[in-house]
Amino acid sequence: MTKRKGQLKLGAFLYFTGHHVAAWRHPEAWAGDELKHYTDFARLAEAAKFDTVFFADGVDVRLRNIEAASRKAHSGVSLFEPLTLLSALALVTERIGLVATASTSYTEPYNLARQFASIDHLSGGRAGWNLVTSSDPDAAYNFGHVAPILHADRYDRAEEFADVVIGLWDSWADDAFIRDRTNGRYFDADKLHVLDHKGKHFRVRGPLNTPRTPQGHPVVVQAGSSDPGKELAARTAEVIFTAQLTLEDATAFYADVKGRLAKYGRSPDDLKIMPGVFPVVARTESEAREKFEALQDLVQPVVGLDLLAGLAGGEELSTYPVDSPLPPLLESEAGKSRQALLIDLARRENLTIRQLYLRIAGARGHWQLVGTPEQIADQLEERFVNYGADGFNVMAPIVPGGLNDFIELVLPELRRRGLFRTEYEGATLRENLGLKRPPNRFEKAAEQTQAAE
Amino acid sequence: MTKRKGQLKLGAFLYFTGHHVAAWRHPEAWAGDELKHYTDFARLAEAAKFDTVFFADGVDVRLRNIEAASRKAHSGVSLFEPLTLLSALALVTERIGLVATASTSYTEPYNLARQFASIDHLSGGRAGWNLVTSSDPDAAYNFGHVAPILHADRYDRAEEFADVVIGLWDSWADDAFIRDRTNGRYFDADKLHVLDHKGKHFRVRGPLNTPRTPQGHPVVVQAGSSDPGKELAARTAEVIFTAQLTLEDATAFYADVKGRLAKYGRSPDDLKIMPGVFPVVARTESEAREKFEALQDLVQPVVGLDLLAGLAGGEELSTYPVDSPLPPLLESEAGKSRQALLIDLARRENLTIRQLYLRIAGARGHWQLVGTPEQIADQLEERFVNYGADGFNVMAPIVPGGLNDFIELVLPELRRRGLFRTEYEGATLRENLGLKRPPNRFEKAAEQTQAAE
Repeated sequence: MTKRKGQLKLGAFLYFTGHHVAAWRHPEAWAGDELKHYTDFARLAEAAKFDTVFFADGVDVRLRNIEAASRKAHSGVSLFEPLTLLSALALVTERIGLVATASTSYTEPYNLARQFASIDHLSGGRAGWNLVTSSDPDAAYNFGHVAPILHADRYDRAEEFADVVIGLWDSWADDAFIRDRTNGRYFDADKLHVLDHKGKHFRVRGPLNTPRTPQGHPVVVQAGSSDPGKELAARTAEVIFTAQLTLEDATAFYADVKGRLAKYGRSPDDLKIMPGVFPVVARTESEAREKFEALQDLVQPVVGLDLLAGLAGGEELSTYPVDSPLPPLLESEAGKSRQALLIDLARRENLTIRQLYLRIAGARGHWQLVGTPEQIADQLEERFVNYGADGFNVMAPIVPGGLNDFIELVLPELRRRGLFRTEYEGATLRENLGLKRPPNRFEKAAEQTQAAE
Repeated sequence: MTKRKGQLKLGAFLYFTGHHVAAWRHPEAWAGDELKHYTDFARLAEAAKFDTVFFADGVDVRLRNIEAASRKAHSGVSLFEPLTLLSALALVTERIGLVATASTSYTEPYNLARQFASIDHLSGGRAGWNLVTSSDPDAAYNFGHVAPILHADRYDRAEEFADVVIGLWDSWADDAFIRDRTNGRYFDADKLHVLDHKGKHFRVRGPLNTPRTPQGHPVVVQAGSSDPGKELAARTAEVIFTAQLTLEDATAFYADVKGRLAKYGRSPDDLKIMPGVFPVVARTESEAREKFEALQDLVQPVVGLDLLAGLAGGEELSTYPVDSPLPPLLESEAGKSRQALLIDLARRENLTIRQLYLRIAGARGHWQLVGTPEQIADQLEERFVNYGADGFNVMAPIVPGGLNDFIELVLPELRRRGLFRTEYEGATLRENLGLKRPPNRFEKAAEQTQAAE
């Protein structure tokens, strides 16, 4: 295979005040939850021509962190609700894509379809939905459940949820609304489509009471890397947000997922693979390492153990000495692929509990790069040109500090190599990502019927 | 009782492009669903010092209107999703309250509590939630149901839903977030409260992963006028949006609802009664009547019959001659109080089907005033000073045209009489409405425990 040409795509991913678990303690992180921080973040990323801002989410406080009174060091207890946040950001930005995470586990597809469609209207075609299932066991208790949902059930529901949402987005043809005042015709009844979905998890008649959106429909992003996750992505996703730690794993994942597209009648370009990357950058390598260590020094053991709590047997880890090797763990129903990556890492490098949590305190299981702008650009370029990624979701260690560093140091180097844009190509997120505008499934069927007659 | 002093409150209510069913056909109505229309609407209302903009909602297209191909004259098939819309408007307004309708019938209290809390944060304390149940039978089919939900069940669920949402809003004390970087204390664990609700309809542990909001919690608005609706309002609402057609009914309703507050430990001032009013105003009475008739002339019979379709037996109305008297009707599960008002009206005045639908084509069952600025101000003043209302939700016949008329003609007359503000009193919606900031229920309990010790 020849090395690829072209430019890579970049998302500015945000989790709290930066991806490093101790970011909030650092002087270069914003303090508090004020709207101004988020608008500054979006404007900064837009000025740098990122494809997207991309917000993580969760629907719980994670009580396990709170029951012990000593566990009040964690910042992950409050998260700005991302759909209302995206709507607000739509009015203070003009070109950047707006992507939010929303779980399929605890909401109704009609409501979610309508809200994301609305954000696509509000933003003039810049919305993206990061479809996830909720693996955090505490979330279930906020939605009527008495126990966490099993992994297989979450994915089964997610599959059907995606079909309903994407189907509802085609309720109206693009030109369904006539609004002919003189003759009193508001819409064309032939261009209104009833989904009438009857499935295992959902029964949704439709149509959606929202016109078709500027992008046809919002861009569908997915994060699952398990086998059901990859299959769901191959069938329905347009961007995949994933985690691979080595070039070998990345190219294997890339080939695997892209290879699954054909059976759904899709081409490899219809799905962009954008793994997360956690970059700590400075002008010299030693300065970058110092920066990173300064953040690591801010990690409190109680927070580190909480990070590991999602692992099977994670609850009991606090009963082992923090400097002892990782004890044997059982498989759990939490995110399977991420967990397997972590356990493999600890076994491969013979890490202690402390070493393991420090290893994930920054990138949280994603790809971690600490170095000079040239070193980081080399790594990103290598992944890109060898078909390991179509782009990256940049998880700045601290926000705004770490995002500024990436913009000021790494972007000029990527641009010098012709790997990143200097201006947006299009007006919509789809146009910037190089994704086609999807035809309306019902209109397409109608056209084919007409052609056959 | 002496006549009251003080000033009345005003909301700018919006349903599609104006409250009159044929508004969209009028040249003074906006065309289309563009965001710009909504931002213009909010800015216009804010410049005029309205307390709120207030958006109606529904979660269906009303298929009954669509199945017959001829029924494509109705504009009520698409509605901007109000929570995403409010979030956007929060960034282009500064003082006006932002109220949206959201149904308790087909969503999860955790998600709704979080989104409204977020809007209160985004807007700096200007959010309000109009709590409704979904009476439209078509909505049920979009959320897994095979038949509409019964009226009693809707209210039973709504009662519990309100308790969960309001309880979740107190998950954190106002000063729970310390964010002490040096000592690594992000929050005070004693100021985090677990609702742990276990009821008939919901099981929600909490806490909400959103800090307590600028207003303590968003203002709770309710629209039900049935007996369960009034009781729910007396217990939990802070604004009631209602419909009474005569002064006698209005004062009776006012006294009834205010009289129910004491048993919940609330004072009459804790709940503002703001009925809807549909004003058609012009400099002379004959000009106002002409304006109204011009709108009435735009009502197509098919749309008029659709308006009546919510009545029991409404489906069969189209089989009767449109100029025959209203046939006998059965009680249905649709909004009971509104329906009873309409049937009473038709019986009292011996109206034909056409006359009845024309009677509700404008105000849709709310109070309709056609006249000069003085005549309209007289009517509003009479209701206000005789304890029939604390203010009004103005349902402009056409938007922006009819709202402009009200602002340019009626507001100066109200201000001349000292009945409406010339500047906002406060920064939050609560401050402008004269509602107190609610204490945190858990903190209150803690304080009382401390005081008793």
